[in-house]
Amino acid sequence: MLSVEAQKMGFRVIILDPSATCPASSVCHDQIVGGLSDLNSLLKLADLVDVITFEIEHIDCDSLLQLQQQTGKTIYPNPNTLSLIKDKFSQKTFLKQHNLPTGDFREIKNKEDLKTAIEDFGLPLMVKARFGGYDGKGNFVINQTNDIDQAFEELDSENLYAEKWIPFQKELSVIVVKSQDGDIKTYPVVDTYQQNSICSTTVAPAQISLELQDKARKIAFDVLDKIEAVGVFAIEMFLTKDNQILINEIAPRVHNSGHWTMEGCVTSQFNNHIRAVTGLPLGSTQMLVPVVGMVNILGANYNFLSDDLPKVLAMEKVFVHNYGKIEARPNRKMGHINILANSYSELDQKIQDLK
Amino acid sequence: MLSVEAQKMGFRVIILDPSATCPASSVCHDQIVGGLSDLNSLLKLADLVDVITFEIEHIDCDSLLQLQQQTGKTIYPNPNTLSLIKDKFSQKTFLKQHNLPTGDFREIKNKEDLKTAIEDFGLPLMVKARFGGYDGKGNFVINQTNDIDQAFEELDSENLYAEKWIPFQKELSVIVVKSQDGDIKTYPVVDTYQQNSICSTTVAPAQISLELQDKARKIAFDVLDKIEAVGVFAIEMFLTKDNQILINEIAPRVHNSGHWTMEGCVTSQFNNHIRAVTGLPLGSTQMLVPVVGMVNILGANYNFLSDDLPKVLAMEKVFVHNYGKIEARPNRKMGHINILANSYSELDQKIQDLK
Repeated sequence: MLSVEAQKMGFRVIILDPSATCPASSVCHDQIVGGLSDLNSLLKLADLVDVITFEIEHIDCDSLLQLQQQTGKTIYPNPNTLSLIKDKFSQKTFLKQHNLPTGDFREIKNKEDLKTAIEDFGLPLMVKARFGGYDGKGNFVINQTNDIDQAFEELDSENLYAEKWIPFQKELSVIVVKSQDGDIKTYPVVDTYQQNSICSTTVAPAQISLELQDKARKIAFDVLDKIEAVGVFAIEMFLTKDNQILINEIAPRVHNSGHWTMEGCVTSQFNNHIRAVTGLPLGSTQMLVPVVGMVNILGANYNFLSDDLPKVLAMEKVFVHNYGKIEARPNRKMGHINILANSYSELDQKIQDLK
Repeated sequence: MLSVEAQKMGFRVIILDPSATCPASSVCHDQIVGGLSDLNSLLKLADLVDVITFEIEHIDCDSLLQLQQQTGKTIYPNPNTLSLIKDKFSQKTFLKQHNLPTGDFREIKNKEDLKTAIEDFGLPLMVKARFGGYDGKGNFVINQTNDIDQAFEELDSENLYAEKWIPFQKELSVIVVKSQDGDIKTYPVVDTYQQNSICSTTVAPAQISLELQDKARKIAFDVLDKIEAVGVFAIEMFLTKDNQILINEIAPRVHNSGHWTMEGCVTSQFNNHIRAVTGLPLGSTQMLVPVVGMVNILGANYNFLSDDLPKVLAMEKVFVHNYGKIEARPNRKMGHINILANSYSELDQKIQDLK
């Protein structure tokens, strides 16, 4: 989706990916088949391009830093920022240092630390791996003191931290983009709904008061204002039961909670990311219709092309984005469907029909 | 643009084109480098795909027919329809036979025929090559009887016909699509503006009465109703000085006068063409905003990427589509810009700013 937008503006796109049949392989000028953290592959890529960006955070930051130093090529977002965000504990520390709202947390070096954390923060308590988690992986919920051993077995016991449990009423996300000139634009807040810790649906704008919407967008703006960043970021948030907005996590890339912007906004997150990393002015993040939904197509239900496509395409203002992934696995994100609507009730009906 | 839409729906796309660096080469799963009328290349293509379509009419119809017979593979639109349309004289004859409105015309086999045509139709008189014309090429205007020799020298003298001069106030176009089930949908009428016989700008909806808009869409509907067709067609029309609508030409493919539909309509002409040729239901042709313009980027002004892109992208609701053609030639269509607006005056201002 990034590559198609880049090409629309006239850029040539070279993809680095370990799989020769990855989704981007059929929408690029050339591909280097190689690991994202493999310095030789990165050097090959750097040799062919003027600007480097990424859309996954599981890349070795040291490789990127070395690449930047060795070649002088620009990487957006900055590898140091990636490094800061990849370590969830340092991310949280950064937020706290800059007075950005987030829940209480604490480094956990051993089982003793965890016991003390339980005493101070209470139960349940969320324990997280500092590195590499996604879609709920790398998280462990301590419900009773007896769970401590299991948490240390299941997670990377050397790199843990604990988060005080946040009783939330909603999960929100704000996509935000910063240009090379420092211009920052936020998209409308979305409600994100998860099943088994995987995003299943988003609804824009979030069904919260305008005041809370403004507050969430202001928080996302402030994060990008404080962090060294060029490009699109997603700021995932909790709306707590007492109507506080707390930052859950920052994603340093275009994000599933921003896929609705493709047909939903004047400028999609993908188009704005390309504008940002190539030094172009940002486009409007305004919505084109009152309400926009997004539903993920997950692997388990995936005979989509043959059976369901005609039914889906017969619906009004429904847009299919199939990523062309060859292998379908349970819960793998195979594509998504965007839905334009005039009201939340129209959207709800369409989402029900789709499901 | 077709390929990107096909991929969104989950299709694999193989392109046949003589140039390895053609625009589609960077948005397809695979490419066969070969001539569009070369039977061997066509057979290679047929071997790899289930459905074949084309987006240029300058293909040898006999090759396509042979391909269809030899492989049993479906080609949309039908090669016989392509053949009918490619010969502008048989196209006109078809329109007349089906009582579809078009100007008077006559086959011209020799200079005597042309003299008689001048006597019957008057001057000026339009002489056209039956085959292969585009962007004004293959047309010759006879202003005086003395011009006859020159017309026969400049055009393919074996295959000519004459069209009675049509004093028109406007040129219109309607994009229309027919599905495999015979469902037909027309897009809103556009005004098309040409410079040196090349389309420079389109405006949707055309600035004519609603009654005339309905009439033009009805004519386009009727053409697809009468012709054996699956896919998108463009029906170019004249609005005469006495408010008659006459069909000028049929294009059996997605068309420059439909490029505005990409951001302008719920379903673009490209998306609907792919739906049609793959047997899927057609999507809504409704506009998303009140007024949509399209401006072509022509070769002569083409240092677009470096100089003008930031200025263009700083404008609101302006969408750049650069085709990634490597060689810029005067008047070559290198890309287009779509413009969304709330009023014709807003659109006019934006078009002026763009130019």
